[in-house]
Amino acid sequence: MSKVYLVGAGPGDPELLTVKAWRLLQRADVVLYDRLVSPGVLEVVNPRAHRIYLGKHEGQQQQIQEQIYAAFLRFSGGGGTRRTIVRLKGGDPMVFGRGGEEWMFLSAHGIEAEVVPGVSSSVAVPALAGIPLTFRGVSQSFTVVTGHCQKGAPEWTRYAAADTLVVLMGVKHRAEIAQALIDAGRCLDMPAAFIERGSTPEERVVVTTLGDIARGEVEVESPAVFVIGEVVNLRAMFARKQRERDCLVPVEITVAASAGMEAA
Amino acid sequence: MSKVYLVGAGPGDPELLTVKAWRLLQRADVVLYDRLVSPGVLEVVNPRAHRIYLGKHEGQQQQIQEQIYAAFLRFSGGGGTRRTIVRLKGGDPMVFGRGGEEWMFLSAHGIEAEVVPGVSSSVAVPALAGIPLTFRGVSQSFTVVTGHCQKGAPEWTRYAAADTLVVLMGVKHRAEIAQALIDAGRCLDMPAAFIERGSTPEERVVVTTLGDIARGEVEVESPAVFVIGEVVNLRAMFARKQRERDCLVPVEITVAASAGMEAA
Repeated sequence: MSKVYLVGAGPGDPELLTVKAWRLLQRADVVLYDRLVSPGVLEVVNPRAHRIYLGKHEGQQQQIQEQIYAAFLRFSGGGGTRRTIVRLKGGDPMVFGRGGEEWMFLSAHGIEAEVVPGVSSSVAVPALAGIPLTFRGVSQSFTVVTGHCQKGAPEWTRYAAADTLVVLMGVKHRAEIAQALIDAGRCLDMPAAFIERGSTPEERVVVTTLGDIARGEVEVESPAVFVIGEVVNLRAMFARKQRERDCLVPVEITVAASAGMEAA
Repeated sequence: MSKVYLVGAGPGDPELLTVKAWRLLQRADVVLYDRLVSPGVLEVVNPRAHRIYLGKHEGQQQQIQEQIYAAFLRFSGGGGTRRTIVRLKGGDPMVFGRGGEEWMFLSAHGIEAEVVPGVSSSVAVPALAGIPLTFRGVSQSFTVVTGHCQKGAPEWTRYAAADTLVVLMGVKHRAEIAQALIDAGRCLDMPAAFIERGSTPEERVVVTTLGDIARGEVEVESPAVFVIGEVVNLRAMFARKQRERDCLVPVEITVAASAGMEAA
């Protein structure tokens, strides 16, 4: 019996693959991957594996999805060959991108399947850019939503109350999304950021406001993670790359004696 | 110069550590860890490393936090020794748990720091239990919130609109949380699940409803991930461990010929 692993490739840096994903990629017979998987991650793949690119492009999602299902059937069946098939998806395999549907397809066809969670870009990319999604006194929650295929602007009013909002696949419709959030009560000067190619050496961070985005003044290249909320301001406070020695906010912490530390 | 790495330990299974976290643990001089780090993960740690347990217990958070800061200062300074100090946190280091504050402390004290994202339990634990947080036509978004230290029930009305709601550290106040969500308009029979010790062989999943939780009828042990939403129903549809061959929902998918597949 062959087995399909639905594996998260993480945000791009191959060191952010899980140990399990790394091992599976090194012994895979077949790797099916899409547009969000980085070249660095693909270098980890067993050189003898059959690699199949199945990136989705605008307007042909359904056609490509059928090719993915066809590949599952083709490689898992036949000839008594036991294959390790890795379906590799950017970030975490169950955060958007139809991972759950692919799992359902495999279940329905009696193909053995296992989910291998990955580091989600929604959480990791902002953090690596100096924006933690939660911070005591600033953000007690975060919402992750896709900017793609939403049923129109009214939907966004539901997300306007989130402490921190992360929009994946939101570059194309960024101006409408920003305007919808403003219409739902968010301030024009609410800080927002786009992080392109997060976790890689080509990372680019754009810090801006909802107002500027709504006015169409912010240039961003897809794919990028779009973050909205007060936590974006924290970025200026972290001494990234050790360049800044002074913290921009007063940090008053009483340091207790280390005597009470429990060693294990 | 010593360096502090703020590292995510993932949900519990050591195979779900990132490659970067694994390597850092194997060469660490000092590892500061808390209650949510699993025994399996600790087995990865360099046996010569100085391990310090700094778990937070109810009512002594501030005291322990000061001990963590004292340990940062103590191990990073002095004697010209260059140490690799790993601050190991369950899940992702920037999802709750004061990771951002620790980063701020390090910045303010000129201590070199780097964030190493991990697999967040909020996403991975439900998925491993058969509950993807997103699913086309069922859930287009998810919200992650802490059940600890919220400013009271009215806060929960803000989260009631989420397609899928994940509550971390929500076991203790589960009845109040469920009641607040019902008061905010969620149905009594809205499915919910608790996953205890997710990703480990001791995983236990309780599938229930908001109504039963609000009535105090659901026994759960902390820590557990608490998930609320229609996606909980998907769990029954996945053929976990290959026991179920029949899918509970009709899946109608046309499989196209694989001729158009692009090989790379």
